[in-house]
Amino acid sequence: KPTFDPKEHQHLRYNPLRDSWVLVSAHRMKRPWKGQVEKPPEDNIPRHDPNNPLCPGSVRANGELNPEYDSTFMFDNDFPALQPDAPDPGSDHHPLFQSKAARGVCKVMCFHPWSDITLPLMQPAEIRKVIDKWADLTVELGATYAWVQIFENKGAMMGCSNPHPHCQVWASNFLPNEASLAERCQRDFLQKHGEPMLVQYARMEAQAQERVVVENEHWLVVVPYWATWPFQTLLLPRRHVLRLPDLTTQERDSLASIMKRLLTKYDNLFEVSFPYSMGWHACQALGHCTIIQDLHCKYRCQPNMLLPRAPTGSHLNKNMSHWQLHAHYYPPLLRSANIRKFMVGYEMLANEQRDLTPEQAAEQLRKLSEEHYKVKKA
Amino acid sequence: KPTFDPKEHQHLRYNPLRDSWVLVSAHRMKRPWKGQVEKPPEDNIPRHDPNNPLCPGSVRANGELNPEYDSTFMFDNDFPALQPDAPDPGSDHHPLFQSKAARGVCKVMCFHPWSDITLPLMQPAEIRKVIDKWADLTVELGATYAWVQIFENKGAMMGCSNPHPHCQVWASNFLPNEASLAERCQRDFLQKHGEPMLVQYARMEAQAQERVVVENEHWLVVVPYWATWPFQTLLLPRRHVLRLPDLTTQERDSLASIMKRLLTKYDNLFEVSFPYSMGWHACQALGHCTIIQDLHCKYRCQPNMLLPRAPTGSHLNKNMSHWQLHAHYYPPLLRSANIRKFMVGYEMLANEQRDLTPEQAAEQLRKLSEEHYKVKKA
Ligand SMILES: O=P(O)(O)O[C@H]1O[C@H](CO)[C@@H](O)[C@H](O)[C@H]1O
Ligand SMILES: O=P(O)(O)O[C@H]1O[C@H](CO)[C@@H](O)[C@H](O)[C@H]1O
Repeated sequence: KPTFDPKEHQHLRYNPLRDSWVLVSAHRMKRPWKGQVEKPPEDNIPRHDPNNPLCPGSVRANGELNPEYDSTFMFDNDFPALQPDAPDPGSDHHPLFQSKAARGVCKVMCFHPWSDITLPLMQPAEIRKVIDKWADLTVELGATYAWVQIFENKGAMMGCSNPHPHCQVWASNFLPNEASLAERCQRDFLQKHGEPMLVQYARMEAQAQERVVVENEHWLVVVPYWATWPFQTLLLPRRHVLRLPDLTTQERDSLASIMKRLLTKYDNLFEVSFPYSMGWHACQALGHCTIIQDLHCKYRCQPNMLLPRAPTGSHLNKNMSHWQLHAHYYPPLLRSANIRKFMVGYEMLANEQRDLTPEQAAEQLRKLSEEHYKVKKA
Repeated sequence: KPTFDPKEHQHLRYNPLRDSWVLVSAHRMKRPWKGQVEKPPEDNIPRHDPNNPLCPGSVRANGELNPEYDSTFMFDNDFPALQPDAPDPGSDHHPLFQSKAARGVCKVMCFHPWSDITLPLMQPAEIRKVIDKWADLTVELGATYAWVQIFENKGAMMGCSNPHPHCQVWASNFLPNEASLAERCQRDFLQKHGEPMLVQYARMEAQAQERVVVENEHWLVVVPYWATWPFQTLLLPRRHVLRLPDLTTQERDSLASIMKRLLTKYDNLFEVSFPYSMGWHACQALGHCTIIQDLHCKYRCQPNMLLPRAPTGSHLNKNMSHWQLHAHYYPPLLRSANIRKFMVGYEMLANEQRDLTPEQAAEQLRKLSEEHYKVKKA
């Protein structure tokens, strides 16, 4: 009987952040592909288009005029999935017909005044401004809402309806499914193993190196052991950090730098502006930092950096040190600029499945240049 | 303050089959769409293409010759994600790096010898043959494997790599994530409420009618109260049935008929061959019917119809009456033949979200003709 080889033999891997399993069938990469080939997104985006509602000086759907912004720019989503004042559906429901009130806000944040630029092509100082805004928003919206989801859909393949570089922020009065999974899994892990899951995980991956894509003094990017999407990555701080606002100045600069390096590699992989959905998962509804101060935290966390907020969150005064700030990148491409992985029949009805090992994906990404292919060609 | 209107006010609905919530934001349908528009799949599929490995008489990737089949045709997937003999990765693992053996088989089943036909255009007697094969496979593969997943990816948009009408069957030695969720949720429901969840649910939906799309003596199709995909449906028997092999002759004919009616409506919605992923969830690893006989089941189930199998399954001798056979249809289209719903950033990182109410979707489908648009035009 042959000995186990992860590149040849399908197996299941456990995702401790979602308490689920992924089927890894790397030998599937050998099959030919005759299915849908999507045309790569157009590259002829004008730098400025007065009809694009995200551009400086444009008029948006609600009649408002955008300022002539020259850095980031934030506004309320004109077609929000969450509104602050929706009435309550009422709570006297049959177990099979249960509903719950949902309230929130949806914001859009442009990264840059130009439509024809993306994060990996922006200057580190410009990316830094995006990070600062993310941190500010976490504080601002976190004062009212239980969960603030910062996310970016990049590329038409990922449902992005506007090429102008932007992300979205949806804040809600409820803990979304994925957030409560991450909350539960991290909480259980700390209880069982005495250390926050992702603090331990980052340390072990930094040591093993096998799944590391890029790293610097403060940050680490890995294709996680349990990655589902072909080139999925997890961006982790090395020290124990609960939220974006807790990052120091150096950590923010260092984050801008590692994001630029990661996203440049992504674009270089298939020489295309790499589509993905990404987002931050972070501890929320934290109150004043007493929570952490009580802990005598051994992870070099600096409790005085937690920004105070009104003590209204339901998590308040609970020990939240099981949390570790992290970002997920979920890119769909598998084989080339226009052949993607489909999460369809088996994945939707039975089990998530991937076609190359996380180690193979990490190696491919690691070997790529950190000079963007467009810069090189220019 | 306005009174709650599900069409105007976002709210959460509970999915009791997956123990999760979906955000319903129906007012979002008002927004314009400027994002990706996929070109409708080609309609010029030749009836027979000797180079298509799924056609009668073709040679497949492994050199085998397909018979000149004239009904259904089954073969082993030439690029299987699951193989019967993969070695065990070993079990002495760190909690963050856990893996598990995965063994199984992947089969492909052609529905019909023609490449240019689909289920809604097939004769009921032809669809009946597909159903019989599904039932046989459940018995055959269920004798060896813990879970048999029958699923169909239809259309290039759903990752289908070959236009020839076919489905897949992946059987595994492990209970996939979605299967164990359905198992747990149905088990808990019976324990708590004294009746199998989906038996109760079908009865209540049949009474309410609001979410019913099509129904007949034995079957019911609804847009479930907790639907995630815009036109998602749930196909349910009216009586308590654990598995496809347990269906009577009349129930199978009646299933062929309701599938044809549902799929015709789907195609008529946007006058396109409607893409979807569908699949069956059913009780598995059932042994001899003593399990049910012990129950004095009040749901008209007929224990003698459970086919006996070797008593090796790990579920054997457990009471499995919490299960109810059902099929899920997950179609991606939202607004037209080429504008789909994207499950991306917020959905991947936070919470599933939909843009019209299940009641609106059911009404749209219900109102459609049951004569296929292609037949009408011909
Ligand atoms: O039908 P195929 O080509 O084997 O594959 C298709 O269905 C599989 C099962 O849902 C997916 O894993 C693939 O990503 C998809 O392209
Ligand atoms: O960016 P948009 O156009 O608001 O919308 C996009 O992202 C949303 C959040 O992930 C999804 O619900 C939509 O389906 C997608 O098209």
